[in-house]
Amino acid sequence: MPTAEILSQGDEVVTGQTVDTNAAWLAERLTDLGFTVIRHTTVGDVLTDIRDIIRDAAARADLVIGTGGLGPTEDDLTARAVAEAFDRPLVLDEQALAHIEALYTRFGRRMPAVNRKQAWLPTGCQRLDNDWGTAPGFAVEEQGALLAFVAGVPREMRNLYEQRILPLLRARFDLAPGRLVTLRTTGVGESDLQERIGAFEEPEVVLGFRSILPENHVKLRFDAGTPKARVHAIVDDLAERIGSALFAIEGLDTPGGSLAQVVARALADRGETLAVAESCTGGRVAAACTAIPGASTWFVEGLVTYANEAKVRLLGVRPETLAEHGAVSPEVCAQMARGVREHAGTTYGLGITGIAGPSGGSEQKPVGTVHVGLATPSTVHHRKLRLPGDRERIQTLSTAAALDLLRRSLQNLL
Amino acid sequence: MPTAEILSQGDEVVTGQTVDTNAAWLAERLTDLGFTVIRHTTVGDVLTDIRDIIRDAAARADLVIGTGGLGPTEDDLTARAVAEAFDRPLVLDEQALAHIEALYTRFGRRMPAVNRKQAWLPTGCQRLDNDWGTAPGFAVEEQGALLAFVAGVPREMRNLYEQRILPLLRARFDLAPGRLVTLRTTGVGESDLQERIGAFEEPEVVLGFRSILPENHVKLRFDAGTPKARVHAIVDDLAERIGSALFAIEGLDTPGGSLAQVVARALADRGETLAVAESCTGGRVAAACTAIPGASTWFVEGLVTYANEAKVRLLGVRPETLAEHGAVSPEVCAQMARGVREHAGTTYGLGITGIAGPSGGSEQKPVGTVHVGLATPSTVHHRKLRLPGDRERIQTLSTAAALDLLRRSLQNLL
Repeated sequence: MPTAEILSQGDEVVTGQTVDTNAAWLAERLTDLGFTVIRHTTVGDVLTDIRDIIRDAAARADLVIGTGGLGPTEDDLTARAVAEAFDRPLVLDEQALAHIEALYTRFGRRMPAVNRKQAWLPTGCQRLDNDWGTAPGFAVEEQGALLAFVAGVPREMRNLYEQRILPLLRARFDLAPGRLVTLRTTGVGESDLQERIGAFEEPEVVLGFRSILPENHVKLRFDAGTPKARVHAIVDDLAERIGSALFAIEGLDTPGGSLAQVVARALADRGETLAVAESCTGGRVAAACTAIPGASTWFVEGLVTYANEAKVRLLGVRPETLAEHGAVSPEVCAQMARGVREHAGTTYGLGITGIAGPSGGSEQKPVGTVHVGLATPSTVHHRKLRLPGDRERIQTLSTAAALDLLRRSLQNLL
Repeated sequence: MPTAEILSQGDEVVTGQTVDTNAAWLAERLTDLGFTVIRHTTVGDVLTDIRDIIRDAAARADLVIGTGGLGPTEDDLTARAVAEAFDRPLVLDEQALAHIEALYTRFGRRMPAVNRKQAWLPTGCQRLDNDWGTAPGFAVEEQGALLAFVAGVPREMRNLYEQRILPLLRARFDLAPGRLVTLRTTGVGESDLQERIGAFEEPEVVLGFRSILPENHVKLRFDAGTPKARVHAIVDDLAERIGSALFAIEGLDTPGGSLAQVVARALADRGETLAVAESCTGGRVAAACTAIPGASTWFVEGLVTYANEAKVRLLGVRPETLAEHGAVSPEVCAQMARGVREHAGTTYGLGITGIAGPSGGSEQKPVGTVHVGLATPSTVHHRKLRLPGDRERIQTLSTAAALDLLRRSLQNLL
């Protein structure tokens, strides 16, 4: 298998002001593609260091991908470092310049003079046009290695990798990627998941786990050439062991996606609609729904009723219920779900109320106590949760729990 | 200033299955302490690679901290790599063994045989007792550098750094930490920011830029011993050059914080309240507000009125205004802001309506057209935006623009 190295550049990364998520993102994709990733290196804005690292990496690996250091400012040194490392003096790339100017024009602004610097690229490089930001990337072949350099802003980097670098890799390397299948679950911890799966010994598969709050993933890396029927049989077996916590499978012919995407697809397919009443999640459920393109066909409204008065006025929660049971109770949760469904005239209504902390907890209702409710045309489903962690974690887990309750209803699992 | 390098070891890190948060955590602390962190390197479980990297790092830096590779299994290779790099054969450390055994005893279990391996440490090293897990760390002096190796589990690593490594560093190095000041801005691009600042040449400060959507930061690292009056004079000068896009200063005696935190503090101080009516941001403004502990004292409610019917029913937007100007218009935006303020009885009302895409745009109102409005006790402020990028970016920038309009009002900048 060809080898790959990843370079991350920037004072903000080497001093720890920014956690470098680019390296892990790239490493995962390169591994999936069939590369052996042998090293990541992070270095600050020091010309000689960058130059030496680029040269060393080219000597060791078949592929080097560098991120960062392509901005307009004086401390963006990657192009100069490549120029010095391989004796490829910087030259003004007129097309790159036109591309940057066009980007500014499109937004009705004039290109600041400093941005001209970004159009100076190493002699003889291949330009990687950046349609997502001002910094063009570029690629060179040196010492038998392909080296590609792109912007460090994650959104730009991801687009440049997928749209510009990936085609180069497919053309240049003889890659034999295995098949990667991801089983996405929520509401079940990693060790529980491991116990459910139990003994797993299939010679053509490597099984791994990965936690991305609020999900736990089971990753299956099948050897290249594993027959499709065999892949399906193994995945089906695992899906059965995992049970209803499994909400999406990616890497087969299935659509996959996040919890909100799975819910969105089901609602759109059925021509059904949703309204949401949130207290402790404070708009996160609505935000997760409306992050999905086309949400307006099924998402009607979201009410963030933080104050009790708003729960009464907007949702029809009864003051006596609030007085008797408190805002964080199954009763108020159910009234919120029913109220928002009725007021908005939707198929479903979700209600979430709880204590995200850090204050507001009591002995009977400690921080992390959360109720999620789902009103359907025929009934109200309710779940009480006791969630661990800080405010951020409790809000994230509550949001997932609410969407998962709806997902289970849509999949007839309740 | 002494230099430092950080090594992270493990197949799960180099293949991107785990994002390496240890390196950033250590780098930040070492930088604050007065080290110049010059490089992080991540490598998989390959003995020769680890050995070479350790040797190279010791030759370059004054301090090397390595994490990971100290577990009980065969692919945990750090101690062997150090032994080979510096010709310090592994020897059984009886005290380390007793420490591991005691840890198991404490939890009522017998130590598995494989864990004996963890007590074999390089000859002549200084043991770093691990009270938070089974893997003891160790430190050696080689080539004029101090090298310390600790477990990679973040919780263990952090404790080992603070309780074991930090005392060594204070004893061994003459540290003079500088002062880091961050100026946080929003609504202004990095190159615009640079142009506003213009020529900046102060010998005792290093100036850098950092983009974290939707913010751009100016970072100032002052040499140790720079008089406080001088720090303030330079920061004041820069603040004036940047102008009203500056919303928080961190690292001085100022409280700093995110845009939502700045707004939250101002509202809480004044005893004022907020309600929000969102269309294209879909709950993100409410979520940003309610992410802040104690938001219930000033955040009353958020309405995500995606459908026109909801805008009419919940906010009192006039159907004829919708028909005449469309939902994405200054008129509807103003009615949303006024409507939510009046219905909720708050000091301020924010209204956001726009086209986040990918579909829904037209020639007159392309994707990225967004209106934000702020209703105050006396008037309605309005901003029309033309935002670049995809749905995610447009939603993020719109959310910041809405909060920034409120921030400017609270700071009397409108």
